[in-house]
Amino acid sequence: MNNHISKKLGMKPGAVVYVGKKRDDAVTIDAISYTNDEETIHTNLTVSDALGLLSNDRICWININGIHNSEIIKQFGVALEIHDLSLEDIANSRQRPKLDEDKNSIFIVSKMLSGSETSTKIKVEQVSILFGKNWVLTFQEEDGDVFDYVRKRLINTKPRIRFLNPDYLAYALLDAIVDHYFIVLEKLGEDIESLDEEVTENPSPEQLNDIRVLKKQLVQLRKSVWPLREVVSSFDRTESDLVHKVTKPYIRDLYEHVIQVIDTVETYRDLVAGLLDLYHTGISNRMNEVMKTLTIFASIFIPLGFLAGVYGMNFDTSVSPLNLPELGFEYGYIMFWSLAVCIGGGLLLFFRKKNWF
Amino acid sequence: MNNHISKKLGMKPGAVVYVGKKRDDAVTIDAISYTNDEETIHTNLTVSDALGLLSNDRICWININGIHNSEIIKQFGVALEIHDLSLEDIANSRQRPKLDEDKNSIFIVSKMLSGSETSTKIKVEQVSILFGKNWVLTFQEEDGDVFDYVRKRLINTKPRIRFLNPDYLAYALLDAIVDHYFIVLEKLGEDIESLDEEVTENPSPEQLNDIRVLKKQLVQLRKSVWPLREVVSSFDRTESDLVHKVTKPYIRDLYEHVIQVIDTVETYRDLVAGLLDLYHTGISNRMNEVMKTLTIFASIFIPLGFLAGVYGMNFDTSVSPLNLPELGFEYGYIMFWSLAVCIGGGLLLFFRKKNWF
Amino acid sequence: MNNHISKKLGMKPGAVVYVGKKRDDAVTIDAISYTNDEETIHTNLTVSDALGLLSNDRICWININGIHNSEIIKQFGVALEIHDLSLEDIANSRQRPKLDEDKNSIFIVSKMLSGSETSTKIKVEQVSILFGKNWVLTFQEEDGDVFDYVRKRLINTKPRIRFLNPDYLAYALLDAIVDHYFIVLEKLGEDIESLDEEVTENPSPEQLNDIRVLKKQLVQLRKSVWPLREVVSSFDRTESDLVHKVTKPYIRDLYEHVIQVIDTVETYRDLVAGLLDLYHTGISNRMNEVMKTLTIFASIFIPLGFLAGVYGMNFDTSVSPLNLPELGFEYGYIMFWSLAVCIGGGLLLFFRKKNWF
Amino acid sequence: MNNHISKKLGMKPGAVVYVGKKRDDAVTIDAISYTNDEETIHTNLTVSDALGLLSNDRICWININGIHNSEIIKQFGVALEIHDLSLEDIANSRQRPKLDEDKNSIFIVSKMLSGSETSTKIKVEQVSILFGKNWVLTFQEEDGDVFDYVRKRLINTKPRIRFLNPDYLAYALLDAIVDHYFIVLEKLGEDIESLDEEVTENPSPEQLNDIRVLKKQLVQLRKSVWPLREVVSSFDRTESDLVHKVTKPYIRDLYEHVIQVIDTVETYRDLVAGLLDLYHTGISNRMNEVMKTLTIFASIFIPLGFLAGVYGMNFDTSVSPLNLPELGFEYGYIMFWSLAVCIGGGLLLFFRKKNWF
Amino acid sequence: MNNHISKKLGMKPGAVVYVGKKRDDAVTIDAISYTNDEETIHTNLTVSDALGLLSNDRICWININGIHNSEIIKQFGVALEIHDLSLEDIANSRQRPKLDEDKNSIFIVSKMLSGSETSTKIKVEQVSILFGKNWVLTFQEEDGDVFDYVRKRLINTKPRIRFLNPDYLAYALLDAIVDHYFIVLEKLGEDIESLDEEVTENPSPEQLNDIRVLKKQLVQLRKSVWPLREVVSSFDRTESDLVHKVTKPYIRDLYEHVIQVIDTVETYRDLVAGLLDLYHTGISNRMNEVMKTLTIFASIFIPLGFLAGVYGMNFDTSVSPLNLPELGFEYGYIMFWSLAVCIGGGLLLFFRKKNWF
Repeated sequence: MNNHISKKLGMKPGAVVYVGKKRDDAVTIDAISYTNDEETIHTNLTVSDALGLLSNDRICWININGIHNSEIIKQFGVALEIHDLSLEDIANSRQRPKLDEDKNSIFIVSKMLSGSETSTKIKVEQVSILFGKNWVLTFQEEDGDVFDYVRKRLINTKPRIRFLNPDYLAYALLDAIVDHYFIVLEKLGEDIESLDEEVTENPSPEQLNDIRVLKKQLVQLRKSVWPLREVVSSFDRTESDLVHKVTKPYIRDLYEHVIQVIDTVETYRDLVAGLLDLYHTGISNRMNEVMKTLTIFASIFIPLGFLAGVYGMNFDTSVSPLNLPELGFEYGYIMFWSLAVCIGGGLLLFFRKKNWF
Repeated sequence: MNNHISKKLGMKPGAVVYVGKKRDDAVTIDAISYTNDEETIHTNLTVSDALGLLSNDRICWININGIHNSEIIKQFGVALEIHDLSLEDIANSRQRPKLDEDKNSIFIVSKMLSGSETSTKIKVEQVSILFGKNWVLTFQEEDGDVFDYVRKRLINTKPRIRFLNPDYLAYALLDAIVDHYFIVLEKLGEDIESLDEEVTENPSPEQLNDIRVLKKQLVQLRKSVWPLREVVSSFDRTESDLVHKVTKPYIRDLYEHVIQVIDTVETYRDLVAGLLDLYHTGISNRMNEVMKTLTIFASIFIPLGFLAGVYGMNFDTSVSPLNLPELGFEYGYIMFWSLAVCIGGGLLLFFRKKNWF
Repeated sequence: MNNHISKKLGMKPGAVVYVGKKRDDAVTIDAISYTNDEETIHTNLTVSDALGLLSNDRICWININGIHNSEIIKQFGVALEIHDLSLEDIANSRQRPKLDEDKNSIFIVSKMLSGSETSTKIKVEQVSILFGKNWVLTFQEEDGDVFDYVRKRLINTKPRIRFLNPDYLAYALLDAIVDHYFIVLEKLGEDIESLDEEVTENPSPEQLNDIRVLKKQLVQLRKSVWPLREVVSSFDRTESDLVHKVTKPYIRDLYEHVIQVIDTVETYRDLVAGLLDLYHTGISNRMNEVMKTLTIFASIFIPLGFLAGVYGMNFDTSVSPLNLPELGFEYGYIMFWSLAVCIGGGLLLFFRKKNWF
Repeated sequence: MNNHISKKLGMKPGAVVYVGKKRDDAVTIDAISYTNDEETIHTNLTVSDALGLLSNDRICWININGIHNSEIIKQFGVALEIHDLSLEDIANSRQRPKLDEDKNSIFIVSKMLSGSETSTKIKVEQVSILFGKNWVLTFQEEDGDVFDYVRKRLINTKPRIRFLNPDYLAYALLDAIVDHYFIVLEKLGEDIESLDEEVTENPSPEQLNDIRVLKKQLVQLRKSVWPLREVVSSFDRTESDLVHKVTKPYIRDLYEHVIQVIDTVETYRDLVAGLLDLYHTGISNRMNEVMKTLTIFASIFIPLGFLAGVYGMNFDTSVSPLNLPELGFEYGYIMFWSLAVCIGGGLLLFFRKKNWF
Repeated sequence: MNNHISKKLGMKPGAVVYVGKKRDDAVTIDAISYTNDEETIHTNLTVSDALGLLSNDRICWININGIHNSEIIKQFGVALEIHDLSLEDIANSRQRPKLDEDKNSIFIVSKMLSGSETSTKIKVEQVSILFGKNWVLTFQEEDGDVFDYVRKRLINTKPRIRFLNPDYLAYALLDAIVDHYFIVLEKLGEDIESLDEEVTENPSPEQLNDIRVLKKQLVQLRKSVWPLREVVSSFDRTESDLVHKVTKPYIRDLYEHVIQVIDTVETYRDLVAGLLDLYHTGISNRMNEVMKTLTIFASIFIPLGFLAGVYGMNFDTSVSPLNLPELGFEYGYIMFWSLAVCIGGGLLLFFRKKNWF
């Protein structure tokens, strides 16, 4: 889980240290700089390029893919007067979702989830969103994100009245993240439903593992989404000038989406707990069936075996007519079988009446 | 569950998108326009017809059956100055119950439940209620609703002092929805009670499925009714001019009904959880009975079988009088049976004393 | 449960509809009218008689037995200016305990419990208490109540300073109701204790039913007493002129009694849940014992049976001295028994060492 | 539990009625009257003696052992202007811990626990503490208390600056009571630990009873200590002149002790619940072991028994050489044993591989 | 647990009593005294030496290893005007984490956890942190702490602007303590994960013990960390002059770390509870497998044994041709085996179809 956190041990607070797995690939920076009716798209920027794009006339969204180069983070930090502790949080990919207000910027950490159609694994990536008066900064752990729809809307919408507020852009990014939670939840819901059917039909130990995987994914989701509730709520309640009144209804709408995600996660947790119950009940039912089978066979044939044993005894019939006289009867064998069938049939009827089969 | 929500992915917030299953039937609009002592009933209206009915002298309740045509929703939105996000929520049939206040209108989303006598299925339909100074708008997913009693009362009551407040009409509609929750709960309560008796008498795996269905229905109910509590509470606490003081006691009464629904749902959840316990206990009891039967049979007849086996052995009695002398006894066979009956009877007494049968 | 609530479907809010089982007996009205030092007791009044008793010089407590005649409720409602919704609640015997304040009166709904010594059934009856400046009204479902002690005190206490406040009389009535909760709880506590002993000594499926009955009674109690807490708390916190400062300590005392009832109910719920655990553990212990018995018998006598079977084989000893030579030994049979006893005894020791018996 | 509460039924609120078991021994009263530097100790006082000790120059702590004489309680009540309801609570030994403020006095009810080293029983006694401007009154159910240390400190400390505030003395008494909770908890903790070891080593049904006793003691403790939290919190937050600012840090310290007691009680509840789990797991493990033993024995010797049975059959070898030719083989018997050993050994290996023994 | 708390019984509040296990080693005191750009390190100080280091020009951090000498604690208490109750808490190593404000100092109690790589044991040590205008005092139970990194940073950082505030130093110490919680959690997380794999593969009773150890460690962690949340929250919200505005963001950051620790602890508790479930399910699965094996063997060979027994009977074939005619058939033995194989194979198929193997 936190198996690299020891890296940070002994660092001063505010130290910008990447705690994830070691990576060598370069950090890429791209940006969209726009006014109400025109935009420029920049890719493969250096930090100074990116900072050079900032101007009072334009809004600039700078996206940084990769948080394993702390120098880059620090350079942005110095240029945009971001608090040391925020810079530390950007680099620490195990940061809990949070919102911090500073004088000139608002800093949001959230978790971006993405699941693939083919695999059951959910990918979690940390996204830090910062915005100031005329800029938005996003830090992601890796290339590839859920913001493509936002980019398209940003470029296509004209006039871009709402997008001239960086808070609206930040909202739109968060909204895109939360929308993807629904996608992940949809996939999970289908998995739960199909597992539910399987367990009902034929409980087998392999399903236990599937249940455990689902459980862990829900734990992960919970850890991402519960703190997000607080984040969005702070975003709504903030009195900072950076968040405009016109954006507030959108943030409240986002808040409701987060609540809906939480509701669904909690419902799914209940369903998964129910799956485990179902599994256990299935096992019990089957055990019951096994025991009934054993009892029916044993209770019928053990007494019959005793009966056959009796007539296999070697008491000396010549000594006394009282010793095993049945052996000398003309219909002895037939009587034996009749008795055996009566006993067996009687027991079967008895078990039948008890509803055992 | 949310298996069509991906449709909305990438849409801008406020985009009016229907997320339910595809439908081709036309959206129908009807309306009742009334003053204190006279009313007109309109059916099969177009949007412009409907909007034309609005006037300052009359209250107008426009009911729209069908939310799969986003154009119609948008036209009402523009004409009545409804916020984009509310329009989005009307079309999104998976919206959580909520209440939003705007300058000129109040917007309520709720879930209408209806169950049929014959089937165990509960039908959930989303109803959006909006009202302004002199109009009430209701959006339903399909034809058929629970408002017939409200319509009757609206038409029959004269003078219609209370109904001249759109907030009272909105309250009456919500009240009708909540009243139907009780109907659904009554049906559920009966189902639980009859299942309870069945499980007590004769637990069988099929009941497990019934329990699961009940559980899911309660989950559904919970999701509909918990947020409604907040909705009605906001409706009561709102300081909007649109909600009159005279309506407040009615809203508080409605609030109590919602609380009562929640209480009953929670009690039913407990009862259903108790059913599962009962089932498990029934299975355990039966397993116990099965095991006792097996043990009694096996513990009596396995030793007896051994005894019969002993006298079936072929030790050579001619070699020594010590070899199986019993076989030559005059009363050997009778002694054998006496011993067998003693052992069997003794064990039966032993098990009896242990209270096993 | 609510199996008659459908009766109310479609009624307007405030409609006074009795929802209980149909009743034909007449509604009886009696009253006590008193000043500081003298009282008159009236029985079998009509509504107008009863209303005629009201006067500014005297306090009048009117008790109505029977809520199935809505006319009577309405007449009192009109005369004493009671809100429609309160009248509706009086007639609705499934109303949740509540307290409503109106301009001239305070309206309290509560549940009166009474259990008999002989039966395990708890009788629940709804009592509505209304009081105004100089009157108290109580509506009960049936004849017979828990107020006899209050009546006696009311008549015997002189001067009746405290009782000159209708709020104190209302408090005293509620207090009498809550005192009877303790009686019911005492009975329940004894039932739990005796069941606890039974289950510990000898768990049997019939006890399961007793546990279920206890559970349902506790659910019923909970539903009656939890909302009562809120009722009494509102009664204490109200700023209405109808509740005098001198009565407040008594109401707070009542509040504590309610808390104590809730505490006890919750403790009992824990105890009953513990009973179920105890039952399950008893069943497990017994199953264990059954299995041990089976295993001991089977593990000893199945091998011995095999041994006897061996010496019952018919290998031809005349062909070769290697075939079953034991059969021809002089001490063969004695050796067989020695071996059998050794095996049996050895296994017994083994099981003994494993602490199985 | 409350099995004498019916005694109080129908009494007026404020009626001083002892509800415990009937007692005949006399109520004893003793007192310590002190100034800053000198004290007098009085024993075996009458009520009027005790009241005579009160003076404005001295602080007087009067301790009454026995609450079954309501006359004595009433006399103190009248003399010190104590509210009727408080007097009622003093006599009612089933009162929940509480704190009531009156004009001239503060009234605290708490439960004094004391356990003996030898027995597992926890003795609960109700202690009521009242204090006014220059007096402290304590009512106990029986002789013997946990206040000896307080008495010693009170007598030995000089100058007694702090003890000149009755609130400090009240605090010290409560503190002594809470300190004894720790003693009781220590004992419980040891019991839990030793039971834990026993259950781990060898689960047996008798331990179930010990677990139940522990559970009930914890329920008792909880009922005593949870309401105490509120009591001490009110004691701290009170704005009464009777509680001096200088005493507040001590009360807050006491509050923390109460929290610690609650924490420990809750932890112990978890541990005891864990014990039950442990017991059940132990039973399951043992059942598993029993079943394995049975299965190993039965699965090996039932097939072998069948084999021996085969060669005990009486097919007529003289009719055809195909009938049981093995019986005539020279090495037939040895082959039989070889086969038996192979089958038995093979099955043992199979079970071994399955890790069954 | 609290097995020495009885030592304190009867002590006055504020009595400085060490409650841990008896120790004889000396208490060691060391200190770092520093200004903005220069520092002196002192070791093996006496109390008066240490107090002599305090001066208005310098900040002085005095660290005391050992709380079993109450004299030393008292001397610091007198010199620095620390409240009696705080001194008591320093010496009481079972104190719950807390923060107390006094006029001239702030007093923090927390638990320092340290786990070793090799052992599964978590060492808990109490650390009390006090700070005033220009001094910080830390009391530890033993030598060895988690503050080495803080010491290094303190000495290496120049200019030491932040460290000139004692509140920042106190924060840095607390931060070091909380950082070590993460280390302990990492270790625990790995233990849980490896145990999870073991239990999934092969559940065995020894794992139960490991689960119990984990559970107890989590209980310990919880008790240390939950109250710490409140401590850090008070540290943040305090209005004392001793905590500077510039330190607040750091404290808030620390608060979030504490929340993250709590989150992880709670998640781990869930996981450990899941482990127990997993164990139980493993045991059930195995029991099922055992029972199936028994049932298959017994259900096949008991009937076959009966069959062999039948042909081992001694009915007199010479009396009548109806007695066991099969014994005289030419292919009798072969028919017997054919029948046996058919029965055995048929049953195997039957069990196979039931999916039992």
